Amino acid sequence: MSENRPIALLTDFGMRSPYVAAMKGVIASIAPAAPIHDLSHEIAPGNIREGALFLDAILPYWPARAIHVCVVDPGVGSGRRRMAIDSDLGTFIGPDNGLFTFVLRRARRRRIVALENRRYFLPRLSSTFHGRDAFAPVAAHLAAGADLGDLGPPIGDPVSVEFPEPRLNSDGSVSGEVIEVDRFGNLMTNIETAALDPGRRWIVRIGSQRIEGILDHYAQAANGALMALTSSSGRLEVAVNRGNAAERLALGLGTAVSASPEPRRP
Amino acid sequence: MSENRPIALLTDFGMRSPYVAAMKGVIASIAPAAPIHDLSHEIAPGNIREGALFLDAILPYWPARAIHVCVVDPGVGSGRRRMAIDSDLGTFIGPDNGLFTFVLRRARRRRIVALENRRYFLPRLSSTFHGRDAFAPVAAHLAAGADLGDLGPPIGDPVSVEFPEPRLNSDGSVSGEVIEVDRFGNLMTNIETAALDPGRRWIVRIGSQRIEGILDHYAQAANGALMALTSSSGRLEVAVNRGNAAERLALGLGTAVSASPEPRRP
Amino acid sequence: MSENRPIALLTDFGMRSPYVAAMKGVIASIAPAAPIHDLSHEIAPGNIREGALFLDAILPYWPARAIHVCVVDPGVGSGRRRMAIDSDLGTFIGPDNGLFTFVLRRARRRRIVALENRRYFLPRLSSTFHGRDAFAPVAAHLAAGADLGDLGPPIGDPVSVEFPEPRLNSDGSVSGEVIEVDRFGNLMTNIETAALDPGRRWIVRIGSQRIEGILDHYAQAANGALMALTSSSGRLEVAVNRGNAAERLALGLGTAVSASPEPRRP
Repeated sequence: MSENRPIALLTDFGMRSPYVAAMKGVIASIAPAAPIHDLSHEIAPGNIREGALFLDAILPYWPARAIHVCVVDPGVGSGRRRMAIDSDLGTFIGPDNGLFTFVLRRARRRRIVALENRRYFLPRLSSTFHGRDAFAPVAAHLAAGADLGDLGPPIGDPVSVEFPEPRLNSDGSVSGEVIEVDRFGNLMTNIETAALDPGRRWIVRIGSQRIEGILDHYAQAANGALMALTSSSGRLEVAVNRGNAAERLALGLGTAVSASPEPRRP
Repeated sequence: MSENRPIALLTDFGMRSPYVAAMKGVIASIAPAAPIHDLSHEIAPGNIREGALFLDAILPYWPARAIHVCVVDPGVGSGRRRMAIDSDLGTFIGPDNGLFTFVLRRARRRRIVALENRRYFLPRLSSTFHGRDAFAPVAAHLAAGADLGDLGPPIGDPVSVEFPEPRLNSDGSVSGEVIEVDRFGNLMTNIETAALDPGRRWIVRIGSQRIEGILDHYAQAANGALMALTSSSGRLEVAVNRGNAAERLALGLGTAVSASPEPRRP
Repeated sequence: MSENRPIALLTDFGMRSPYVAAMKGVIASIAPAAPIHDLSHEIAPGNIREGALFLDAILPYWPARAIHVCVVDPGVGSGRRRMAIDSDLGTFIGPDNGLFTFVLRRARRRRIVALENRRYFLPRLSSTFHGRDAFAPVAAHLAAGADLGDLGPPIGDPVSVEFPEPRLNSDGSVSGEVIEVDRFGNLMTNIETAALDPGRRWIVRIGSQRIEGILDHYAQAANGALMALTSSSGRLEVAVNRGNAAERLALGLGTAVSASPEPRRP
């Protein structure tokens, strides 16, 4: 029963190199009944923040019994710790480098251990590929029934990375920035629209553009029109209906965005 | 038993963004025993026709018990209906926008319902990501044993998109066009070679090229030679043996192609 | 029980075209309980050597019960044989064109048969897509319990491709070349560092660069520094810590690399 816990993989390895395939083989060897799922292997190389935001977006949708092996690990082989987090949001295995910032923030219950017990690693631990030699086998052993407490000593100070928080200004406007661009060229910001008074009309500014109103879905704008709406994660999003906003505006990650309430008229 | 129905995913989401990973989590939460398969997430953004042709190519090869969740959905959140098709070719779930044109054409038995019963959706239905909030949970509930009739009222007029049909000319030639270019640069047309009299020799014209004869497999042409052959889907294909025809000819989707029978000599 | 043997797919098909999806449907139809895993579909089109090296990298990590369907098959439809290899490293199914060179080299026990019994193919065998019509169904039938001996007659002379071997020079240096570039721009060579005397200090030369010492992991070099280290496959690797060596040096596959022992000082 416990062997059927799903194991989900998130890496920056791409699929052309044999890294992901080696990890899957390790898991299939140790926990043959555990379903293996690809989350993504397209995280930008070494981009811990992108990996952390990816996890944030999927956390609400995966069951607590899932085991996530997450490898965006530019410090592999150095002193950075390896860790496992057992939480009400699932089990997460990977480097202690901030990749799990949002897991740590959002979990209501969590237990963290350092992965030090080599009995759960492959016999030979390379210095450059802990995804294959440590993280994948630990995940498979957990799926096969191993006990978290056996993996190593508790960690009390896991690493988090700082993310820019939107700023509430004295005039009632909110300033944030673009934190993700998706395949459609939609620009996702760090501003949560639930925080914007729905009784007001909001003006969104990005680059040299001024957009009136925050809509609900793409088709509310004309084809090709620039628009602001609430994203599927509840964030302010700038998009072009049936078009590519990032290309149209030539804007991307880190671009400043603001939302200002339209002045009430007397 | 029924819970083991495979769920196959076809989208235009790409793998870098967290959309596909969120859908997989929803399915793994509701139907833990259902195997999840990636068909493709590389359909060009919003390209309903490309998605429809993709489905056409795989329909004969999947079992009827499979559940296909297909999301190429530029009209998400607008008035377009959500639907499920139960057929002898499998169950298909997605937007009613023409994506299932060939399913509707080829199925011998089918039953279509609108997805309106919110009991089978996630508790919160966003306006921009029905793949996660409606289509994935409905597929998982079906895999877990839900009844199609419970999902919503029947649909009698599902949307289809028009595809160009090849034209039979008075001189016996057939005119068509390129409808797909694969990773190898092979140009796939909408002309079915079974319709061409095998007792005649055929001349294929594309761009400024004239190709004599329709071959059977790549190695029948010299390395680097332009050739015409029957594709693995039974269609007229223009290729370069161990080369890339699309690059060589600088031609792509929509290019006119014709096949003419060589005049019989007295 | 036997039906749960995992089936792993390695191709050069990419994911945008429907080829991989058709193969998965064939497998799901014949062996519904067999888990299907993507190894990679990003092998460069027709590049048999790249596919062979990919397999070499993962062989140690997959269980012997796995069935690998491998399709890099530029000669499809020609006289090249189709084959299955049953070995202590797993079962491998694909074209007899050198793709399995390292499987043949490393297996201690092997049995090879030609795939000639059409009873295990799809009813219609196309000339251009044996992955779908022959290799996938054979794999699924094996997973479902078919007997290897039933597939066809033994093969005694499987095809191998030659790979450049590193050369040991009279001055004690070793000359090799770059055989893989991964997503991080790391340059992997064919020189195994276990063959280099660890009691000596080694000088690595690539392009116009001279690198002192062979390190153990990336973080031993400064951020942005060019370095040599032992790869996760035990090979000499040239990398840039948190950077891209292939881009920095503008070097790639086939580049000459040497390792020379530093002269001992009196």
